[in-house]
Amino acid sequence: MPSQGKLFGMWLITAGPTREPLDSVRFLSNGSSGTMGYALAAEAARRGQEVCLVSGPVSLPCPEGVERIQVQSARDMLAAAEETLSGRSCAVLLGVAAESDVRPRECVDGKPPKEEMSDHIELVPNPDVLATLVGRAGARLAVGFALESMAEDHGGFPGALERARGKLERKGLDAIVLNQLASMENPETECWWVEPLGEPKPLGRGDKTILAVSIVDRLQMLLRD
Amino acid sequence: MPSQGKLFGMWLITAGPTREPLDSVRFLSNGSSGTMGYALAAEAARRGQEVCLVSGPVSLPCPEGVERIQVQSARDMLAAAEETLSGRSCAVLLGVAAESDVRPRECVDGKPPKEEMSDHIELVPNPDVLATLVGRAGARLAVGFALESMAEDHGGFPGALERARGKLERKGLDAIVLNQLASMENPETECWWVEPLGEPKPLGRGDKTILAVSIVDRLQMLLRD
Repeated sequence: MPSQGKLFGMWLITAGPTREPLDSVRFLSNGSSGTMGYALAAEAARRGQEVCLVSGPVSLPCPEGVERIQVQSARDMLAAAEETLSGRSCAVLLGVAAESDVRPRECVDGKPPKEEMSDHIELVPNPDVLATLVGRAGARLAVGFALESMAEDHGGFPGALERARGKLERKGLDAIVLNQLASMENPETECWWVEPLGEPKPLGRGDKTILAVSIVDRLQMLLRD
Repeated sequence: MPSQGKLFGMWLITAGPTREPLDSVRFLSNGSSGTMGYALAAEAARRGQEVCLVSGPVSLPCPEGVERIQVQSARDMLAAAEETLSGRSCAVLLGVAAESDVRPRECVDGKPPKEEMSDHIELVPNPDVLATLVGRAGARLAVGFALESMAEDHGGFPGALERARGKLERKGLDAIVLNQLASMENPETECWWVEPLGEPKPLGRGDKTILAVSIVDRLQMLLRD
């Protein structure tokens, strides 16, 4: 059983969706509920770790003992995380947020009536929040989440695994948790632990709060290696 | 004081935002919390009315005594409301939802990686949910909500009032509640009751659950005229 001792440095966790505004009312987003990120933050805090949760808009309360910073857009999320990391030591960087990888090129002030709206939205790429933080945080351990379709026409499980491995390498992570598309807005999921070498390890199927315990176990074991 | 007697026919209330999908994960939406629509549904049910709430995705529980149908997109909202109205008599039609007036032209199955995403989203208009229902419901009273910017560069209060009156006429409503942009995601607001003729009547500023009581009072008085 992993020790409950406090590790040096904070756990920085991103969670939830982001909102990328078109105007003062309309935005691009996704249905991430924040459940997994909040469960991981709660579990790490319960074990006595110093946890900072940078969260997009969700309807969950802040877990006990966790410092929460609430943000809207992916760029806000990156800026808030960078500010939090500034001058502080980071033990674990956990990118659980489903931040939007694109945003509307322009954001209009106010709420244009539909007659005045353009018939298209131009998109520009957002910065890669986790990859950028990995480069700056100097975290002892950096782990991401990959939400991938495992449908047959998307290559099934092998296709999902390949895309997850691609993200792991591109973002410079120590490991990535591969998650099914059906995880979105679902209190349960099935996921796999993927490291640069070796086979993916099943983390099991079930409630996200239970899976969070296994993931924190695994993180603490790796930190002690 | 208005009578608490049950009126003939149901109250059909739409509430919350809608989500207009780009693919299985990403969507266009807005930050409507559903608070006002749910408060109106709760208040009408508390007075013994038969209430059906067609609601976009929000984190509120279904009010006691209310039949709730949960939907995602504006087209789903319209279809669910039409099905509910079919063969039933409607006393009051209350369009409180902030349904999206546009949607992406195409919705892709799965979650395309960002490298495979287009650099723009083509938009097409959604059907006008409330205007369509007004034409079909045969409701004794049809009332909408207009969320309008009152900023000086959008014409201030007179500009907002003019846009609200335009909606009232275009949708064939008996009245419209003019609401400030700042109402979005705010438990409080300030709003005005606008009829085709006469000056707008201030409904006051404060908690949406309190404003809902005044609005239901006003609806019941109009039904008895």
